Amino acid sequence: MAKKNFPLSKVYGLLEPGPVVMVSTSAKGRMNIMTMSWHTMIDFEPPIVGCVISNRNYTFGILKATKECVINIPTVELAEKVVGCGNTSGRGVDKFMTFGLTPAVASCVKAPLIDECYANLECRVVDTRMTAKYCLFILEVLKAWIDPKQKHPQTIHHLGRGAFMVAGEVIKLPSKMN
Amino acid sequence: MAKKNFPLSKVYGLLEPGPVVMVSTSAKGRMNIMTMSWHTMIDFEPPIVGCVISNRNYTFGILKATKECVINIPTVELAEKVVGCGNTSGRGVDKFMTFGLTPAVASCVKAPLIDECYANLECRVVDTRMTAKYCLFILEVLKAWIDPKQKHPQTIHHLGRGAFMVAGEVIKLPSKMN
Repeated sequence: MAKKNFPLSKVYGLLEPGPVVMVSTSAKGRMNIMTMSWHTMIDFEPPIVGCVISNRNYTFGILKATKECVINIPTVELAEKVVGCGNTSGRGVDKFMTFGLTPAVASCVKAPLIDECYANLECRVVDTRMTAKYCLFILEVLKAWIDPKQKHPQTIHHLGRGAFMVAGEVIKLPSKMN
Repeated sequence: MAKKNFPLSKVYGLLEPGPVVMVSTSAKGRMNIMTMSWHTMIDFEPPIVGCVISNRNYTFGILKATKECVINIPTVELAEKVVGCGNTSGRGVDKFMTFGLTPAVASCVKAPLIDECYANLECRVVDTRMTAKYCLFILEVLKAWIDPKQKHPQTIHHLGRGAFMVAGEVIKLPSKMN
């Protein structure tokens, strides 16, 4: 998928609405993917993101060790693969192969981009002081990519236990907020 | 609005999809409201929530001092009031009065519930160690309320600069995730 560079100053608009994302990592030549919904923006620019990853997840240890990941944002067309990645562990499964996802080379990190996702955020872990207590990682987005053809990406938003809200219509109001 | 007690174990399903929320506070007999989108679940039960509130916001100081707030979740019918609360500061404006919102008495905190919102989460600040550096407050949800008549609440999700995605259809997939 031909992606374009996406301005870091606009990254918050991709995560602030709360989509389910897929976190990709790489360690010792093995790539992995996990599904995640517990994230928040923390600052605009450089974009700082907080994300909570259970220490039971295979990704937890990889992220602590490598301090790198990519946050990939899928649309509803990928919903089955997203749930598949959430139902399995990278300890036993090659998720790129199992779910037919394509790893693409990133610019700033060794972790791969998931090519099928409409946006990809290359991230570095910048603070792990809350990791022991809250499983909270603080990430800085180093580079962002977007599929310019997706004008109204239908992201999915987890309501719990496999129910997902699909992004609906967009309304515009005269806001002074960023 | 007649609200029912909502199980704490299910609170994550209200916030995980990423809705815009309204944070209500009370200090020295003055109530206030701010609009917020930067939040994440941190733990299931008791529900722990991380939220980022700029130190330029009037609510920042109130929350630090009182250590209490209510997270109120609006639906699209309230979108103009939500944006109105985001465009003004409680330093000069009584937002309940200005925007025609109704404060209701909470059970566990002095901060008021916003009656018009379909769900209300009474919260206590449990950790401020990340507040100085990241404006991040860690909250515990003490009690949750819901409007039982709202089966498919159309929450709103901020895409930036006054554009909001309105919650669309719900799909169900065989997930093992919570």
